[in-house]
Amino acid sequence: MSFAFAERYREPAGSPIRELFPYLSLPGMISFAGGYPSAGLFDAEGLRVAAGNALLEAGASLQYGPTQGDPLLVQALVQACGARGIACAPADVLVTTGSQQAFDLLVRTGIDPGDVVCVESPTYPAVLQTLRLAGARIQDVPVDAEGLDVDALADWLRGCAPADRPKLVYTVPTFSNPSGTTLSPARREALVALAREYGFLIVEDDPYSELRFAGAPVASLYRVGAAAGGGDNPVIYLSSLSKTVAPALRIGWMVGRADVLRRCTVAKQTADLCTSGLAQRIAAAYLDSGRYAPTVARACAEYAARMRAMMQALRADLAEWLDAVEPAGGMFVWARARRPLDAERLFKAAVEARVLFVPGKAFRAVPTSGTALRLSFAASGVEAIEEGMRRLGQALRTVPG
Amino acid sequence: MSFAFAERYREPAGSPIRELFPYLSLPGMISFAGGYPSAGLFDAEGLRVAAGNALLEAGASLQYGPTQGDPLLVQALVQACGARGIACAPADVLVTTGSQQAFDLLVRTGIDPGDVVCVESPTYPAVLQTLRLAGARIQDVPVDAEGLDVDALADWLRGCAPADRPKLVYTVPTFSNPSGTTLSPARREALVALAREYGFLIVEDDPYSELRFAGAPVASLYRVGAAAGGGDNPVIYLSSLSKTVAPALRIGWMVGRADVLRRCTVAKQTADLCTSGLAQRIAAAYLDSGRYAPTVARACAEYAARMRAMMQALRADLAEWLDAVEPAGGMFVWARARRPLDAERLFKAAVEARVLFVPGKAFRAVPTSGTALRLSFAASGVEAIEEGMRRLGQALRTVPG
Repeated sequence: MSFAFAERYREPAGSPIRELFPYLSLPGMISFAGGYPSAGLFDAEGLRVAAGNALLEAGASLQYGPTQGDPLLVQALVQACGARGIACAPADVLVTTGSQQAFDLLVRTGIDPGDVVCVESPTYPAVLQTLRLAGARIQDVPVDAEGLDVDALADWLRGCAPADRPKLVYTVPTFSNPSGTTLSPARREALVALAREYGFLIVEDDPYSELRFAGAPVASLYRVGAAAGGGDNPVIYLSSLSKTVAPALRIGWMVGRADVLRRCTVAKQTADLCTSGLAQRIAAAYLDSGRYAPTVARACAEYAARMRAMMQALRADLAEWLDAVEPAGGMFVWARARRPLDAERLFKAAVEARVLFVPGKAFRAVPTSGTALRLSFAASGVEAIEEGMRRLGQALRTVPG
Repeated sequence: MSFAFAERYREPAGSPIRELFPYLSLPGMISFAGGYPSAGLFDAEGLRVAAGNALLEAGASLQYGPTQGDPLLVQALVQACGARGIACAPADVLVTTGSQQAFDLLVRTGIDPGDVVCVESPTYPAVLQTLRLAGARIQDVPVDAEGLDVDALADWLRGCAPADRPKLVYTVPTFSNPSGTTLSPARREALVALAREYGFLIVEDDPYSELRFAGAPVASLYRVGAAAGGGDNPVIYLSSLSKTVAPALRIGWMVGRADVLRRCTVAKQTADLCTSGLAQRIAAAYLDSGRYAPTVARACAEYAARMRAMMQALRADLAEWLDAVEPAGGMFVWARARRPLDAERLFKAAVEARVLFVPGKAFRAVPTSGTALRLSFAASGVEAIEEGMRRLGQALRTVPG
């Protein structure tokens, strides 16, 4: 018996990153592919204590909870936001099953088929996948060393018929995935001004800003949007504990205006009723334990060393082929080929040499001519990075330019 | 700045059950409303041990995991299914963030706006909410003491234009929510035959079948569908640990044919990437610990006593107003008013008397004339049930017939 699936699920494409999973298990593989935090940096002992504490008051932490989130965790997240310069109240927060769910809820509640959404080029592939499955029209905006090219966006908006204006602009403004760039303060002001002028929401996805290696923190878009005044903040702020504590908690959150939050809460009722109350209590206990800040500091120090090892290899040994801007934080280096390369052959040669990266096309709403590689430095130690980069050099040498 | 939400989220209705939350905190309230398992029956100690074990091998349990589910949990669920007479392999299983997510994924991948889905009348409200937000046309099918009236469904199907045929038939065949009824074996065979004849999928939602108080287990629809042969099984089986272990784990699962599972896995990538790996490992460790069966046995004994107390009060003191079939398991009694009652006044009088139930209209795709109450006996002890039923009697006496 054949079943007629919904239109967009007749032949759905899976995640191009998740489809690299099988290569990960090849013996001796060094992976720069997934956006995985380093397992060696997980504070398992701290989480064990937090889990024990969460399970001591069993009744509450094991029952169904409010869709909006466990009040203890919401309170802890309000404080965590405060430490990032984001002033919010518990009613402004929605806990989500990872920030992937937060984006999905925004698309469910905000996007009808044919609606326009702007993304960075390059952008995070799971966002492209979500938008495609929702039938959105995706408009990409270039990225340079200062992040999203807000002038290019402004130019495009000026020429846009009202029906073609975006409803959402999705950006990772700080240590972007995959470009590693950070949006300059002036561009943040300009982007918020455009949102007010053209009536779109900015989705600020911020999983990485605490993983800073150099320089001073930049005010979040959310804060810029709040400071600008003039009614509702056009910025919806998303963040996650996946990169700083552990992905397996699946704890993300959204901060935003009441009309958006109320609808996303209804959508979450149908999506999963509520996020794991046990994971929420463990997260709350961990955030309250005083171990969060030192864990993040340890990750920053280690990731900075790994990033430097990767950039050193790029500059010293691979500069003939690849060009990259050094990121000031986060998990990714975006390496662009200096001349056209056969991306598929490069990927195959790299797998053969036992090093994995994500090919650049996964990050593009529309195909581009240039070849690029997303290299994550987070998951491997310095020596493995050095070895992996040697293997990448081997692979590059075998591919005709 | 006003934002144009997606069409179905312009004025979305929240869950009618979740909207009862505020009443729960009124002092002295006895609640028969939520489908909450008894917090007193949670095996917090067993879960604490399981959490400790899961966190000992920290690297694996804290990282991102496969969208399909953690292999250790998938293996444990295959065994749990085996104990219910459901033969399946790991590849047939998708772990979900509660079984609510499983249903949502089926709707995302299977239902375009205007597609028809059949539900029981009365049915589970979160299913109605999900279907409405997906733009499905909902066709309700009556329920009697033997569950879904499959003859009525067959009659309706015979008169149905091909374009109006259902793509899915959603049912809780065993200890249904809210009706408490169990589909008879003959009707299970007939329903599977209809699915093959008319080409729809049966969604068998089965969170309650292990909570049996009397009688012998009935073969699941999934098993009936598998035994019938003739190609792909038309039954998609959903279950959950929420009612037997703890809702806060948010562990549900789906068992079904490959084409459905593959698409639901892609949809889950956009929905939340994967279910909490920590919750999955805790669940796997718990299922492997040998504590699951005794915990379920304890719940059965306790819920049976609570159900009997509720039925006793209904028969002895409230028979003048209410009629109910004694359920052989699960968590719910569906009490129908013997004559028309002003449902809103009854609800208000009950809240005033400090007893809560879910008004029957929440469970109807289309309004019906009769008044009914869903009474959950799971969350309160026997004495609280007796007192709550006394209060319900008080409330009934104040409402004119």
